[in-house]
Amino acid sequence: MRTTVGIIGAGPAGLLLARLLHNAGIDSVVLESRDRAYVEQRQRAGVLEQGTVDVLRAAGAGERMDREGLRHDGIELRFNRRRHHIDFPALTGGRSVTVYAQTEVCKDLIALQLKEGGPLLFEAEALAVEGAGTDRPSVRFRHEGREDVLVCDYVVGCDGFRGVSRKAIPASLSRVFERTYPFGWLGILADVPPSHHELVYARHDRGFALLSMRSPSVSRLYLQVPADTDAEEWSDERIWDELERRLETDDAWTLRRGPVTQKSVTPMRSYVHEPMRHGRLFLAGDAAHIVPPTGAKGLNLAIGDAVTFARALVHRRETGSDALLDAYSATCLRRVWQAERFSHDLTAMLHRDPGATPFDRRLQLARLDRISSCRAAAADFAEGYTGFPLD
Amino acid sequence: MRTTVGIIGAGPAGLLLARLLHNAGIDSVVLESRDRAYVEQRQRAGVLEQGTVDVLRAAGAGERMDREGLRHDGIELRFNRRRHHIDFPALTGGRSVTVYAQTEVCKDLIALQLKEGGPLLFEAEALAVEGAGTDRPSVRFRHEGREDVLVCDYVVGCDGFRGVSRKAIPASLSRVFERTYPFGWLGILADVPPSHHELVYARHDRGFALLSMRSPSVSRLYLQVPADTDAEEWSDERIWDELERRLETDDAWTLRRGPVTQKSVTPMRSYVHEPMRHGRLFLAGDAAHIVPPTGAKGLNLAIGDAVTFARALVHRRETGSDALLDAYSATCLRRVWQAERFSHDLTAMLHRDPGATPFDRRLQLARLDRISSCRAAAADFAEGYTGFPLD
Repeated sequence: MRTTVGIIGAGPAGLLLARLLHNAGIDSVVLESRDRAYVEQRQRAGVLEQGTVDVLRAAGAGERMDREGLRHDGIELRFNRRRHHIDFPALTGGRSVTVYAQTEVCKDLIALQLKEGGPLLFEAEALAVEGAGTDRPSVRFRHEGREDVLVCDYVVGCDGFRGVSRKAIPASLSRVFERTYPFGWLGILADVPPSHHELVYARHDRGFALLSMRSPSVSRLYLQVPADTDAEEWSDERIWDELERRLETDDAWTLRRGPVTQKSVTPMRSYVHEPMRHGRLFLAGDAAHIVPPTGAKGLNLAIGDAVTFARALVHRRETGSDALLDAYSATCLRRVWQAERFSHDLTAMLHRDPGATPFDRRLQLARLDRISSCRAAAADFAEGYTGFPLD
Repeated sequence: MRTTVGIIGAGPAGLLLARLLHNAGIDSVVLESRDRAYVEQRQRAGVLEQGTVDVLRAAGAGERMDREGLRHDGIELRFNRRRHHIDFPALTGGRSVTVYAQTEVCKDLIALQLKEGGPLLFEAEALAVEGAGTDRPSVRFRHEGREDVLVCDYVVGCDGFRGVSRKAIPASLSRVFERTYPFGWLGILADVPPSHHELVYARHDRGFALLSMRSPSVSRLYLQVPADTDAEEWSDERIWDELERRLETDDAWTLRRGPVTQKSVTPMRSYVHEPMRHGRLFLAGDAAHIVPPTGAKGLNLAIGDAVTFARALVHRRETGSDALLDAYSATCLRRVWQAERFSHDLTAMLHRDPGATPFDRRLQLARLDRISSCRAAAADFAEGYTGFPLD
């Protein structure tokens, strides 16, 4: 097989990239190791930054998102039983976020790709990227029981943290930056309308809690738990009781309970691989970087990488210049590190770290107090939450 | 002896408090364990926040400050050989800071006190605060070879971190919040005009450096060194060489060298004692809290405490209400914790921590990049640097 851009992985980065290239008249092939049903159902993020919304819409993939997505003009910070609202449009000159699950973004992009785009092969497992340093990089993969080779002009690895792409960059050229956290998130989906119209981020002495939603009738809630927690240790009742405690307020707010339909523990990690490019192999999304979920940045960073690559390739076709392709890693990494910073700092401000001192805990409260009382600090936070610029 | 307000310690907090009380017609006695020459010469901070300048001026202690102090409208952040200017007035609606050494503030306040104010006893060593929980607290002290007792309506402990005041608060009522740092500052005074017209804060892989000044002809410079460093290990030449490396830029900036007239190592500590009041004993300044020097907040916090106490006592005299005195600790602590946060975060952003990972170091650069490229983040920083409100 032969294509211009070989894309490994049909997550948001790979699917959007295929769409952007298709719209620009550049052919690509997407290889996805899982089947379609799996890709369309794996629960991931659900908050789209303003820039992500704009990009999906401009790519012609925004129709259902515009219909079903929930525009959120702020979030609530909750601490010391107080509630503090962060008003995104007022603080950022009109920006907001949209709650629309990653599963839905993927469904929309898959449907478009199958209808209008180039090949998208499910159950096509990439085995290795070869010749990344040459003009003809290729992807060796297994599909329908036999091995094949996809020969490309460029390979973009969108195959997630455990994918094969990153391994094709020689260790001698790689630098890894990493942090693990001694806690994770126990997340549930519940068939109950959300108890607040916005996301609620709660810092509590017992640990962090997050009230979120998937739709007007489905709540998504999270509890900070120790990193090695087995979700089965937590009965539904225990989860609701703990959520109620951590989300407590001084006013009459109450938490609505409902049937829990899914329960799982997400580990927390910060990870960056530098560089994000080697020769004609480009890494995008989780293949190159992981953020803890607190800032809802993972999906949005993946989208940003795809946009950056597509722009760079279009620029080359239009001008003959490799300048933007050469700048791909640096361009992405600047945004990536801002998202890493934001995600790390938000995580540190809200979670109970077992190693924290009383001084550290007072600093957490001082940070929350600062964001709640200083417009500039709130604006910095709101700009970070609604998204770092895509250029 | 008998007075309304017994003040222990003739540092900036104690001296300003005596002045504010004098101006309000409330009598006080200041007890200082050292002699006048010592107090007027101990090198400490040198950056006055906008609010501190305003307070000193309003107290009638600003004449020489206004003549000799250097108004600074910004600082420079230096990292990766780049220089980034933070414009305070543009970011804060006109606020700035003034470089005027603590020694000079003390000299001005001492001269005023001796000329117009109540008793200020040097070499009067406070031994203990007694009866803090009663209506007649007192200070037992030694002066001119004999013990005496100062009976007061209120005692304000402005006697620094190692003073006796704090010890009069029962341990069972006290909470201490603390952090030490594995590094300190090697500071020099040098008879050479400053190499830049503003303070320069440099983050370098070799460690932090700060270029500051005392006057147009005297430079004050600092190097991050390990906590247990003996200043004598560092020859003048080694200090200048190291400053030059850490302050390096891509442009033609150069460091001027000159005769070093003083050399010392300052330890770094964050410390807060809660509460700042017990009965009729009130703690102010370093007696209650210590910040690392990075944010230049120590002197300014002390001034803020003095203002808060004086206001509260005047309020009581005018209204009969103890409300502001009762709120003293909470009022001060809110500002204190903002200053602790600011000082800690600025320290963490700029210093090389021997325990830091490569990830941590990238976060430092991401924070500097953020302040350099986002107006809201720069404004948050500038508002913090020029000072937290005094009310």
